[in-house]
Amino acid sequence: MKDIQSQIDHRRIDIKKVGVKTITYPITVLDKSQKRQKTIATVNMYVNLPHHFKGTHMSRFIEILNRFHGQIDLKGFRLILEEMKEKLDAEAAHIEIAFPFFLHGSGKTDDFQVKKYDCAMHCLLEEEEDLRLEIAVPVAHPFNDAQDGHTLSVGLWGNVLIRVRFRKFMWLEDLIGVVEKTIGRESPEGTDSNAAERPMESLLENLANRFAQLTELKWYSITVENISQGYSLFATLSSADCP
Amino acid sequence: MKDIQSQIDHRRIDIKKVGVKTITYPITVLDKSQKRQKTIATVNMYVNLPHHFKGTHMSRFIEILNRFHGQIDLKGFRLILEEMKEKLDAEAAHIEIAFPFFLHGSGKTDDFQVKKYDCAMHCLLEEEEDLRLEIAVPVAHPFNDAQDGHTLSVGLWGNVLIRVRFRKFMWLEDLIGVVEKTIGRESPEGTDSNAAERPMESLLENLANRFAQLTELKWYSITVENISQGYSLFATLSSADCP
Amino acid sequence: MKDIQSQIDHRRIDIKKVGVKTITYPITVLDKSQKRQKTIATVNMYVNLPHHFKGTHMSRFIEILNRFHGQIDLKGFRLILEEMKEKLDAEAAHIEIAFPFFLHGSGKTDDFQVKKYDCAMHCLLEEEEDLRLEIAVPVAHPFNDAQDGHTLSVGLWGNVLIRVRFRKFMWLEDLIGVVEKTIGRESPEGTDSNAAERPMESLLENLANRFAQLTELKWYSITVENISQGYSLFATLSSADCP
Amino acid sequence: MKDIQSQIDHRRIDIKKVGVKTITYPITVLDKSQKRQKTIATVNMYVNLPHHFKGTHMSRFIEILNRFHGQIDLKGFRLILEEMKEKLDAEAAHIEIAFPFFLHGSGKTDDFQVKKYDCAMHCLLEEEEDLRLEIAVPVAHPFNDAQDGHTLSVGLWGNVLIRVRFRKFMWLEDLIGVVEKTIGRESPEGTDSNAAERPMESLLENLANRFAQLTELKWYSITVENISQGYSLFATLSSADCP
Repeated sequence: MKDIQSQIDHRRIDIKKVGVKTITYPITVLDKSQKRQKTIATVNMYVNLPHHFKGTHMSRFIEILNRFHGQIDLKGFRLILEEMKEKLDAEAAHIEIAFPFFLHGSGKTDDFQVKKYDCAMHCLLEEEEDLRLEIAVPVAHPFNDAQDGHTLSVGLWGNVLIRVRFRKFMWLEDLIGVVEKTIGRESPEGTDSNAAERPMESLLENLANRFAQLTELKWYSITVENISQGYSLFATLSSADCP
Repeated sequence: MKDIQSQIDHRRIDIKKVGVKTITYPITVLDKSQKRQKTIATVNMYVNLPHHFKGTHMSRFIEILNRFHGQIDLKGFRLILEEMKEKLDAEAAHIEIAFPFFLHGSGKTDDFQVKKYDCAMHCLLEEEEDLRLEIAVPVAHPFNDAQDGHTLSVGLWGNVLIRVRFRKFMWLEDLIGVVEKTIGRESPEGTDSNAAERPMESLLENLANRFAQLTELKWYSITVENISQGYSLFATLSSADCP
Repeated sequence: MKDIQSQIDHRRIDIKKVGVKTITYPITVLDKSQKRQKTIATVNMYVNLPHHFKGTHMSRFIEILNRFHGQIDLKGFRLILEEMKEKLDAEAAHIEIAFPFFLHGSGKTDDFQVKKYDCAMHCLLEEEEDLRLEIAVPVAHPFNDAQDGHTLSVGLWGNVLIRVRFRKFMWLEDLIGVVEKTIGRESPEGTDSNAAERPMESLLENLANRFAQLTELKWYSITVENISQGYSLFATLSSADCP
Repeated sequence: MKDIQSQIDHRRIDIKKVGVKTITYPITVLDKSQKRQKTIATVNMYVNLPHHFKGTHMSRFIEILNRFHGQIDLKGFRLILEEMKEKLDAEAAHIEIAFPFFLHGSGKTDDFQVKKYDCAMHCLLEEEEDLRLEIAVPVAHPFNDAQDGHTLSVGLWGNVLIRVRFRKFMWLEDLIGVVEKTIGRESPEGTDSNAAERPMESLLENLANRFAQLTELKWYSITVENISQGYSLFATLSSADCP
């Protein structure tokens, strides 16, 4: 094995990642109304290594996972990242998790009240910690239904995908609330002459206006996706990083 | 091995299936306008055995698959079924295939013209042959768009899922055409007072009326599915088998 | 609408299903060691109707779902089925749920300890209630690893899919335990001469022998699936229903 | 609409993307033995815009797609990228396509002969064109099967994922061949003492050695993924860009 290894032209190799992928795992997330919400996450964990990787790296990941099992929550991620970085002698440690987050409606009985939002987080610990949150808010069709007496939604317009970095803590519920209120405020006049094109454009503008006011956010990216028969149209706006 | 086997209470065992699953495979299907359409299928092949299964059954499946590769089309299925039944000494032989079928639009340039329809077939050879075809027709929102000048569709209402057994040959294109014309004929008046509920009901009735007239069909089942934010509503009507 | 409806040839229509599909929903399942396990289910609910379906059926489903939200567990299903049958004046009511079930390992730190098992249930209320449970047990490769000192598994052999109807209550853990112990008992001699074919055959026989002894079960079906590069081989044995 | 727009703090917005996603589409790819292979791709097309996006951008995408339908092949992508960049007045144009690529085996009848490889390409036209190809090569378990008389593979070890930028044209078949030959050369001695850890490490090293010799490549990244019961272990090496 040694002989083969020495043949590698090490000058050409500049990135090495080692990790564990697509583990499905129960986790606990913070929830404004219920304090803690149990959900199920798909987790990827990996490190960037400055040097050669060895098989022992793999068993270290399993050890770390087992140490934290049953108690993985958002605070726990920082500890795991630190342990990954230290135990594996890594330059950077990453955790990516994806999970459904559920909100329970207020009480009217004519629409389905348990709403699911697909969330994802990318936690990176290098010199400093970086956390990016992603949340998909489905948009019923017609998307300004909430204004009038309509109850059952009658089709799917698409999705709003929000990605943020926080300056200050913000509840997932509040972030979702901002998106859903802004979508609801979409005026009916916006769907007049060329209905096929205008709403996507104006929906993105309305959201961009609203997000520019959220001082809790250090950075944000807004993608509006309009699904159709066999394809989706999408448009994305991202803020510059703030000083 | 023999000892273990003799312990099984054979009286309690009444069904045995052996086969190959989820093979992805290029196939050719008949196409009204282009004669032959190359597409890619996911294939399951299995047999019902009257007696104990042996490991050799598995290698027979691989042999049969290899014999037919590159020339699998709808006519070929009959030959494969016969070979499966004979070589494996089986009571019944099954092939299930699922594939996307593409139709190319006529020429107006303001909507996307390559439409995809997910199809599936279940071919069964027992005493007689039985073939059931399944096709999903996506329904844009609003679903009577085609009547007016609208071009870009602006959301997805849901799907119409058709399952049929043929008495006479019918092109996939023609079956799709029946569904799409019937959807288009949906009158605007049908979406008036309680738009959230009526269309699904009347869409299913319109399709049932239309399909009752198709003498090419021995049997049919129609499912109308209205997708929404986090769930779908569906309703199915199936014809009785005809004498 | 009435005119159109009267044109349908009602003699040809013999099955009508109406329901709600693919709702993702937090549920609670019974867990031997932890009493209750919170997980997330995908739920389908539908009824067979003896007569014409009306739009109001749809809003009834939403009402029923909302009434039970937050408290859906296995006992709750019976109540929901009864309410579905009564409120919708149905001949039969169905609930299908699929969910991941997690087991936490005992304490050795060299293999990953949170195991996920994909489960599904089909609950049917007609004259009587019928409940069928389905559970997939992944099989690592080599599948008799557990016997020796090996720790990290090194590939995926496939799955064992178990479907059962109960005569007496049985914990999910115990059902999984039966499968995993039987897989582990697979003797190394079983993988000798033609290793590619024998294990699947003998694994199914070992499981069939073991399940024939489980008096808690009214009915069972065992599918052994060996995944490979681009396809899976499978074999199924089902018991006859017992008197 | 104008008033709302003027409220946006334009200084904070620095990225704008507009496009079409997840279109499924028949395409033709070059194939060493058969000249042309018809397959089915999932396509994303989008542009980076320096300025505000308008609804008309969306219909332009549909127009461009329709112009090229039926004749999309690898050469066609350059033309589409140019048209996207020009018609939409964009800084950069992207096409991402993913498709299965099939290779037909040589003739031995005891293993399944149509192999599927999942491929993806990212084509970017900015000042210059950049093309990155990705290909996943499944690895059967045990992964050095090819050396001896074994035929049916008996489990899945994982995948090798290759990403490359070309300096010179290279057939997909040849790239796949390099990977599969290198996997096959893995010596049996490599799986001795701690079989659970060594193979992944040495497999990646063998591939890195081999790829360092491929002068056709400007850049490459090799990921070795070992699937297990409930998770995957992976390790990635990437070359630095060459001068």
